Amino acid sequence: MTERTRLLNIVEATLDEVLPRSGERPKALSDAMRYAVGSGGKRIRPIVCLASSMAVGGSADDARYPAAAIEMLHNYTLVHDDLPAMDNDIERRGKLTVWKKFGEANAILAGDALLSLAFSVALNAPRNVAAIMATLGVAGFGVVQGQVEDLERENGALPADAVDFVYAHKTADLFVAAAAMGGLAGGGSERDIEALRTFALNLGLAFQFEDDLLDGDSPFPREKTEALVRQKTDVALAALVRLPGDATLLREIANSLVGRMS
Amino acid sequence: MTERTRLLNIVEATLDEVLPRSGERPKALSDAMRYAVGSGGKRIRPIVCLASSMAVGGSADDARYPAAAIEMLHNYTLVHDDLPAMDNDIERRGKLTVWKKFGEANAILAGDALLSLAFSVALNAPRNVAAIMATLGVAGFGVVQGQVEDLERENGALPADAVDFVYAHKTADLFVAAAAMGGLAGGGSERDIEALRTFALNLGLAFQFEDDLLDGDSPFPREKTEALVRQKTDVALAALVRLPGDATLLREIANSLVGRMS
Repeated sequence: MTERTRLLNIVEATLDEVLPRSGERPKALSDAMRYAVGSGGKRIRPIVCLASSMAVGGSADDARYPAAAIEMLHNYTLVHDDLPAMDNDIERRGKLTVWKKFGEANAILAGDALLSLAFSVALNAPRNVAAIMATLGVAGFGVVQGQVEDLERENGALPADAVDFVYAHKTADLFVAAAAMGGLAGGGSERDIEALRTFALNLGLAFQFEDDLLDGDSPFPREKTEALVRQKTDVALAALVRLPGDATLLREIANSLVGRMS
Repeated sequence: MTERTRLLNIVEATLDEVLPRSGERPKALSDAMRYAVGSGGKRIRPIVCLASSMAVGGSADDARYPAAAIEMLHNYTLVHDDLPAMDNDIERRGKLTVWKKFGEANAILAGDALLSLAFSVALNAPRNVAAIMATLGVAGFGVVQGQVEDLERENGALPADAVDFVYAHKTADLFVAAAAMGGLAGGGSERDIEALRTFALNLGLAFQFEDDLLDGDSPFPREKTEALVRQKTDVALAALVRLPGDATLLREIANSLVGRMS
């Protein structure tokens, strides 16, 4: 079993532990929440969270609840983004979207419940709980700021290349929170957390620029976007050398991102 | 200035302090959040929160951030309840609902942002922060459970008088959280918090039964509902005698509820 598979198993087991039992009253809510979080995804954000704990000298287990929290937060944003009033998406990951399967009202409410539950789950971190909660709160608000500004851009209220604010918040905020919460749960120093933030901000931006390339939806010419992915990845990798623990997996994740492009 | 006015001023000042500045980027979000929380309401939940701190011997100021948080949580539920996919309401408190004024997408997102920000705001409590955050998380999830079950009842999937679960969660959870967080912020003992929970659960149920009467929308005959309001209010008042601080305002609030009926 690779290290990444071991961490993935921790993520899946923790999500299964903290989500409402399937069929728990009210059934529509519990079922929609479990469906939304699903399984079989890459779980990149929670794995970054667990690996960040290891990178500061903690264990992956130290960060299991913050990791589950950030994945629930991420999935709530997807459930709400897919709604008819937003992207009006019918399918995601080859399955019906939550609103298409459970109805719009239940999708709105299942997203809401995932967000509240994420905060409850993060409270189970073994240390630095207040800082972890503050980090989750900033990410929860930031990701909405990014989404609102993205809608304004799509509606033509902002120029198409005004993506700095959108990418920093809509995408990178969750990566930054994942890494910072993992580092805090693992007992990292302030300097460690700062390095993890730099790593994750740049990883998140590289991830988003690359996603645009793969979707053929880039705000810049292809060469410029490819250069941005490489540049952000280099900055992310450079931040890891300062960390006292085992940053092997974080390095692999950053390198695999650049690899996706070619 | 009455004591209740003094507490109301603390609530309004704290909400104004913690909400994004009007026009802050992205403008649609900040404006929609401020509009949603509004002003001029009775603010009964945050006032219960402040008064609960005083009832355990703390100050009203001790509970100002939990009080603002519970009001933001309450207002986010209203914003989402008003959406076309839910109650499809055009007006609330004599003004256009958030979705009608800012659009559906912005209303969904403004509600989401209020929920995340509520957790960030509650973190500023002066003591017992972990217990306060746990209480807020339970309320945030519970209120959604109540709402989903209420929708199932309206759709005929549950009998009309199956209101115990709905009222306990949809309405009472926020009152219980308001009182418990206030007591925790004021430094109350475990016994104090338990008494406050009993008070608030019964106050919340009385409040909901009475609202049904005022709306002509009661699941029971009028006499039965009136008797329930009196009975719940009596239990609420009885719980207050155990508290070590000044419970005058909590007593006034409970008594004024029964007064609304006649």
